[in-house]
Amino acid sequence: MKILLTGFDPFGGESINPSYEAIKKITNHHPSVEVITKELPTIFKKAIEVLDDTLASVKPDVVVCTGQAGGRFDISLERIGINLIDAKIPDNDGDQPIDEKIFADGKEAYFSTIPIKAIVKRMRENGIPASVSNTAGTFVCNCILYGAMYLIDKKYPDIRGGFVHVPFLPEQVIDKVNMPSMSLETITQAFEVMIETIATTDQDIKEIGGTIS
Amino acid sequence: MKILLTGFDPFGGESINPSYEAIKKITNHHPSVEVITKELPTIFKKAIEVLDDTLASVKPDVVVCTGQAGGRFDISLERIGINLIDAKIPDNDGDQPIDEKIFADGKEAYFSTIPIKAIVKRMRENGIPASVSNTAGTFVCNCILYGAMYLIDKKYPDIRGGFVHVPFLPEQVIDKVNMPSMSLETITQAFEVMIETIATTDQDIKEIGGTIS
Amino acid sequence: MKILLTGFDPFGGESINPSYEAIKKITNHHPSVEVITKELPTIFKKAIEVLDDTLASVKPDVVVCTGQAGGRFDISLERIGINLIDAKIPDNDGDQPIDEKIFADGKEAYFSTIPIKAIVKRMRENGIPASVSNTAGTFVCNCILYGAMYLIDKKYPDIRGGFVHVPFLPEQVIDKVNMPSMSLETITQAFEVMIETIATTDQDIKEIGGTIS
Amino acid sequence: MKILLTGFDPFGGESINPSYEAIKKITNHHPSVEVITKELPTIFKKAIEVLDDTLASVKPDVVVCTGQAGGRFDISLERIGINLIDAKIPDNDGDQPIDEKIFADGKEAYFSTIPIKAIVKRMRENGIPASVSNTAGTFVCNCILYGAMYLIDKKYPDIRGGFVHVPFLPEQVIDKVNMPSMSLETITQAFEVMIETIATTDQDIKEIGGTIS
Repeated sequence: MKILLTGFDPFGGESINPSYEAIKKITNHHPSVEVITKELPTIFKKAIEVLDDTLASVKPDVVVCTGQAGGRFDISLERIGINLIDAKIPDNDGDQPIDEKIFADGKEAYFSTIPIKAIVKRMRENGIPASVSNTAGTFVCNCILYGAMYLIDKKYPDIRGGFVHVPFLPEQVIDKVNMPSMSLETITQAFEVMIETIATTDQDIKEIGGTIS
Repeated sequence: MKILLTGFDPFGGESINPSYEAIKKITNHHPSVEVITKELPTIFKKAIEVLDDTLASVKPDVVVCTGQAGGRFDISLERIGINLIDAKIPDNDGDQPIDEKIFADGKEAYFSTIPIKAIVKRMRENGIPASVSNTAGTFVCNCILYGAMYLIDKKYPDIRGGFVHVPFLPEQVIDKVNMPSMSLETITQAFEVMIETIATTDQDIKEIGGTIS
Repeated sequence: MKILLTGFDPFGGESINPSYEAIKKITNHHPSVEVITKELPTIFKKAIEVLDDTLASVKPDVVVCTGQAGGRFDISLERIGINLIDAKIPDNDGDQPIDEKIFADGKEAYFSTIPIKAIVKRMRENGIPASVSNTAGTFVCNCILYGAMYLIDKKYPDIRGGFVHVPFLPEQVIDKVNMPSMSLETITQAFEVMIETIATTDQDIKEIGGTIS
Repeated sequence: MKILLTGFDPFGGESINPSYEAIKKITNHHPSVEVITKELPTIFKKAIEVLDDTLASVKPDVVVCTGQAGGRFDISLERIGINLIDAKIPDNDGDQPIDEKIFADGKEAYFSTIPIKAIVKRMRENGIPASVSNTAGTFVCNCILYGAMYLIDKKYPDIRGGFVHVPFLPEQVIDKVNMPSMSLETITQAFEVMIETIATTDQDIKEIGGTIS
């Protein structure tokens, strides 16, 4: 099995992005999996273009994009990407679209097709805080989740895809107040657990994992 | 203009639901609007059935469903409902579906069609904390938002629809720790501002209102 | 019984201070209580000077100072004031002492002598979120609590004293993210309940109200 | 220099206490420091008795007690211990005093005498989230901070003392919602930085580190 993992470059005034930092450190993954990593720019259109090119050249079985979610307390397995850009801040190219569709011919939303409940369960069994999230926001992270699933829907129907949000690193919250963080080692381990779960799970499990609101 | 407002009955161990309490108190609304209110049961299937019947009999121009979002800090204008039930707790009929579709023939998601950005702006101008939310959860609130937009899509194409989440009332957080609340008066005023905004807004405005994650 | 209530003027970039706003609105208080109100400047030294002058002229039986605690979720009955100024921001006179004593000849700390547990209990019975707090911070609020109890200890041994922190008003959190608030009506009612409790309580009650950390 | 570090045993339904776990893992400390570690029971009276015995036998230059502060986001250098027990839950011996003094002949409060501002600064320089805290709560952690400083005041005037609160470990928050955590490696490193700072700091620095409320 070939898994493509993407992470983003730093944005929003940060000098580091934990998503790509953790991906680079992955070593201890499932023996039957080949892991390919790729850094994506935090730029709406270009991120999708680079992802499309990478999917075409790598031809993975699974693609999992990852990104930084400052303010989150745990590893968040995103359930759905929506056809919307509503940029709170400019992307790394200075572009700040408001209430625009990502693809005019795309569905309203696409659900992730990696086994998010099984991954959350396995992460927790390994002592790593994790949960299912029902929004990836409206910035570049949602854009790449939606974009990945759109590309899969249109061009790569055999690929499974998903997105994972990770908290700030401890060093990123030093000058912030009451901001949760997670160590790079824990995030990296979470990704290793995710790879193993994807490699060994045919169908997602039914576990309680929703939210009231 | 005829606006149908729905609220839910209490659930999750609460003895009151601020959504319907506030709807009942609305008095000071825009003179050109006729407001019809309806309490819905916090039951997945039945809530949609009651809503469908009410839409058929009331024939409103606009339907806004409202619900309690314990833990939220402000009035949340929901942007999208998704085709998923993942019940963290049983509904008021003891039913707790996990990872099921709401309608097999429905889209992945439907976007709200009320002017959420304009409403948020007007609420803030009136001193009421408000924001756009990109997830209504996976419980009955999301179910009725999705259900309303599904019904509109299939049967009532001329109706505009949306959903608003409101925080706990102060009396509901007395035995909870660090839980935000909002007074019934403020929530009621928020609804009155919303009605006025819907009555006077043809097309939503473009204002920054997204989230990074 | 004569109760002196003080509130502060706005500080920290705010245009309003809910503490003094609420005090001004108190009308429905216990018939046997005479309520005198006074606005204090958010200035370390001057606040204590004005308080001292007011205590001398008013000769109250009880003094309760109140202040704004942005970020708090409920009405906080402060338990203790400490002999320390560690100003995170300048006061309204531009003064920003760091790690200085308030009074060189004062105790390390003084405990409040109003019935904080009874007040919390009564507020909750009236549907108002309230709790005991074990820190009033290290800015002007702690300074006036400590100062009041110091003055009582040194000059006015028959006066009982305390301090109450109140959350932001809704209108103050409109441009803040995930910031709790409380309506002016609820804060005012809380003060009225406090006055009644002080007027009718000889000795504080023993109720669980501590914190683990 | 001889530093005594204490941690607590698990309490409040937890099966592990990060404070003592981290202390046990300290290896990389300043060469001129001898580190002695001791586990204290989470029992009001006994914790102080064991600490007193340990101070008498170890005769350290510095004592730093540490404890778990579930809900905190960073390493908290406690500034002050207060003469009060107000137990929210029973201690590990089933004792739950409410609003009682720790020592009848003790001061209202004692300030820590380790260089808390310098320690916070050094931790942050090492990428570790840290801050000064103005309350250690009213449970056993505050009790041992107050008790340590009381014993120092009465019997061991040459010893410097303080207290550090640490967040939950990641594995402790798996079944909690939106609860911050910190890895054992980061907490251990924080303690190593603290030891080095204490060993090399004669007088604390003046840095902004207070709170508004």
